[in-house]
Amino acid sequence: MPNRVRIALDAMGGDIGPAVVIPGAQLCLERHPGVEFLLFGDSALIAPLVDARPRLKAVSRIVHTDIAIAMDAKPSQALRQGRWKSSMALAIDAVKRGDADLAVSAGNTGALMALAKFQLKTMPGISRPAIAARWPTVRGESIVLDLGASIGADAAHLVDLAVMGGAMARILFGRERPTVGLLNIGVEEVKGLEPVREAGRILREHNFPFIEYTGYVEGDDIGQGVVDVVVTEGFAGNIALKAAEGTARQIAHLLKAAMGRSIWTRIGYLFAKDALRSLAGSMDPRKANGGVFLGLNGVVIKSHGGTDAEGFAYAVDMGYDMIRHDLLAQIGQTLVGKGDSLVPPRLTGGGRS
Amino acid sequence: MPNRVRIALDAMGGDIGPAVVIPGAQLCLERHPGVEFLLFGDSALIAPLVDARPRLKAVSRIVHTDIAIAMDAKPSQALRQGRWKSSMALAIDAVKRGDADLAVSAGNTGALMALAKFQLKTMPGISRPAIAARWPTVRGESIVLDLGASIGADAAHLVDLAVMGGAMARILFGRERPTVGLLNIGVEEVKGLEPVREAGRILREHNFPFIEYTGYVEGDDIGQGVVDVVVTEGFAGNIALKAAEGTARQIAHLLKAAMGRSIWTRIGYLFAKDALRSLAGSMDPRKANGGVFLGLNGVVIKSHGGTDAEGFAYAVDMGYDMIRHDLLAQIGQTLVGKGDSLVPPRLTGGGRS
Repeated sequence: MPNRVRIALDAMGGDIGPAVVIPGAQLCLERHPGVEFLLFGDSALIAPLVDARPRLKAVSRIVHTDIAIAMDAKPSQALRQGRWKSSMALAIDAVKRGDADLAVSAGNTGALMALAKFQLKTMPGISRPAIAARWPTVRGESIVLDLGASIGADAAHLVDLAVMGGAMARILFGRERPTVGLLNIGVEEVKGLEPVREAGRILREHNFPFIEYTGYVEGDDIGQGVVDVVVTEGFAGNIALKAAEGTARQIAHLLKAAMGRSIWTRIGYLFAKDALRSLAGSMDPRKANGGVFLGLNGVVIKSHGGTDAEGFAYAVDMGYDMIRHDLLAQIGQTLVGKGDSLVPPRLTGGGRS
Repeated sequence: MPNRVRIALDAMGGDIGPAVVIPGAQLCLERHPGVEFLLFGDSALIAPLVDARPRLKAVSRIVHTDIAIAMDAKPSQALRQGRWKSSMALAIDAVKRGDADLAVSAGNTGALMALAKFQLKTMPGISRPAIAARWPTVRGESIVLDLGASIGADAAHLVDLAVMGGAMARILFGRERPTVGLLNIGVEEVKGLEPVREAGRILREHNFPFIEYTGYVEGDDIGQGVVDVVVTEGFAGNIALKAAEGTARQIAHLLKAAMGRSIWTRIGYLFAKDALRSLAGSMDPRKANGGVFLGLNGVVIKSHGGTDAEGFAYAVDMGYDMIRHDLLAQIGQTLVGKGDSLVPPRLTGGGRS
């Protein structure tokens, strides 16, 4: 484990920018005194925020740039306009050059992924990157991937996702051999599920040393925490995540309305307030904030664009853990075990790609 | 609108069978005095339950069969073994022969879809059937389809889904021109979204008289009730539905645990009980029970296998509405408006099929 962890922050990313990123960095520093920051963005905005935080200032360096990638920029625009000089690109470039151990941005996902792919390239043995995130469950947390880095997946890509998600789970949950399930739908004989079935066969037969493949899971198993790692292709994964987030928000909205309905329910709320707060805490989306870009030659974390400093700090914390426990080496270790011969050639992988 | 609605019930379907189906039929009859039932299954189990309900008995006919399709039967098994004589197949066959207006089964989804496709065939102009269901939202309800009848969708199939979901929404929500959105993920330039984009183009340019296409929606928009009809391919749709159901169950579980934590929270619960019950009511999965098989020459409704009589009755009620307002004619009407020339040939539709 490295003694220091050097973190490159895109200070301009997110709906708010420096006013969230800098206090977020401060929170992370309080929890992990060994961190150092490279802060990329408009120094006129960043410097006053850093100056007000002497401890943060002592471990930070500001690198000025005028260019910030807009939250609504298309990935191709980001590549054209922001490839070299944007705060986002400079943060990733710091990882590439070895000046930082990881980069964190709350900027737009498509642009961040495009720049990260362009600058860092995929790891040997991995053809497409993925986005993985924590998902709160009744048992604690699971990891779900891919959340939208790519659409469609052949069997080989699903196996890669299992390997990468497993490495992340080992770090986050401290389990030697985390359980992995393939997301599937109940109907067994529908055409189009061949890649999922084939990936299941490979995972079962190969019996990887660092992951324990347990079979298929369905959408409602995710929140039950049935497995440590849920593997699916990016379109379904993104929609599952957002459908679950939307449902949680919907229930919170209805619960709030219900609790304010009468004098009696308001009294009830006063008594139950702490319980409801602890419930809200255990479902707090800020705690699960931070999508890890997996499969690249470097660690890049995507924070939610609308989060606050606390939420941003959770994303940085996760990146910190990934570096402390050497995510890339963990993935590489399992990839060596994978053996190319076991995975069918990608061109014949077929299916939904 | 037909005066009577004749409903064929697979009395053996579901985790419980007749003990849920028959009381469910009774509930439906109380709400819709004009219904008649054909009850397919083991008469030794069905008859006593019907005899105990004189009003139901007066409008029901029991058709005995020994064969019931197991909840875990594969669709291919169901076709081989239950094609002609199972309670499920006989209920569908009653629709085909014109003896019933619709069939309802709580039996296994794959088998029911396989038999329904085999016996009823798809409507002219529709190449693949779909499963649609209601989704509770903060504004009321929306319809989401496809929930897993088929995997992958080219642009033409997505347009069909929009047309069929629109017809169902006109009936359920009484809107002349329900709003329709295509489920998509935020990242705009990921390869593989071509069918969704192409379907969006067709829906926008063609401007169907009976549906109002409003653009893309994301997973978290579903629960917000942003549109009346959410269109997606079956794999992502199934996973979105189950992820949302799982999240609702997870929060209910956490809420229950939180409310029982101390004497104070238990007192709070007493005061807030009615409010929490009304919340549970508005998210009651029984009320949204009933998947409508769309695109077949007949109306078939899939009830959840684990529901109770109340839930089963909601599924039958929905089928009743579909017949009273002539779902098939409503779909046909819009399909005529579709015009084949506007939809690219299916073979070149490409994408995730």
